[in-house]
Amino acid sequence: MGGFKHLVIVRFKEGTVAEEIMKGLEKLVSEIDLVKSFSWGQDLESPEMLAQGFTHAISMTFDKKQDYTAFQTHPNHVEFSATFSAAIEKIVVLCFSSVQVKPAVA
Amino acid sequence: MGGFKHLVIVRFKEGTVAEEIMKGLEKLVSEIDLVKSFSWGQDLESPEMLAQGFTHAISMTFDKKQDYTAFQTHPNHVEFSATFSAAIEKIVVLCFSSVQVKPAVA
Repeated sequence: MGGFKHLVIVRFKEGTVAEEIMKGLEKLVSEIDLVKSFSWGQDLESPEMLAQGFTHAISMTFDKKQDYTAFQTHPNHVEFSATFSAAIEKIVVLCFSSVQVKPAVA
Repeated sequence: MGGFKHLVIVRFKEGTVAEEIMKGLEKLVSEIDLVKSFSWGQDLESPEMLAQGFTHAISMTFDKKQDYTAFQTHPNHVEFSATFSAAIEKIVVLCFSSVQVKPAVA
């Protein structure tokens, strides 16, 4: 899948129950059809020096940039964003057209 | 797809021809069957404040952690790493078991 990708890496504030945030995010994307793929993970394996304190990665794919823009302004997303933002210690967000090399796009 | 994910976000040094680095990476993963999926992108869309200077994202998926470990020590990877490392201004690497929420894993 190519598509428009929204990638977030984050470190949550101490005391945050990351599982709850992720459950909220899973619920959010399951309700919004614009989100074509969604996966996340908690870093446990990267050398500490290379992870630089970031603990979670979140990846979403949309068919096109307009769908991402519509997702951002969706009332459910706006509501969730308040919870998410409050839990963040640091964050990097990248948005890009994904070049899918493997597996080859049919 | 779930699997073991290797996620890299990077800012290349000024003067780096990122396209050449990415071509090298595409060649590398196409030669090594352990890499099950590979995609990358150049951030063009994220608000500058949120991208924090990072410019490229690279995502690879392996069936299991052992395959990732084998990839890391593959001679072609070791050779490519020298070129890649020399071009990096800053980098974050996260490795994790991916939780695939959407589309549902069959």
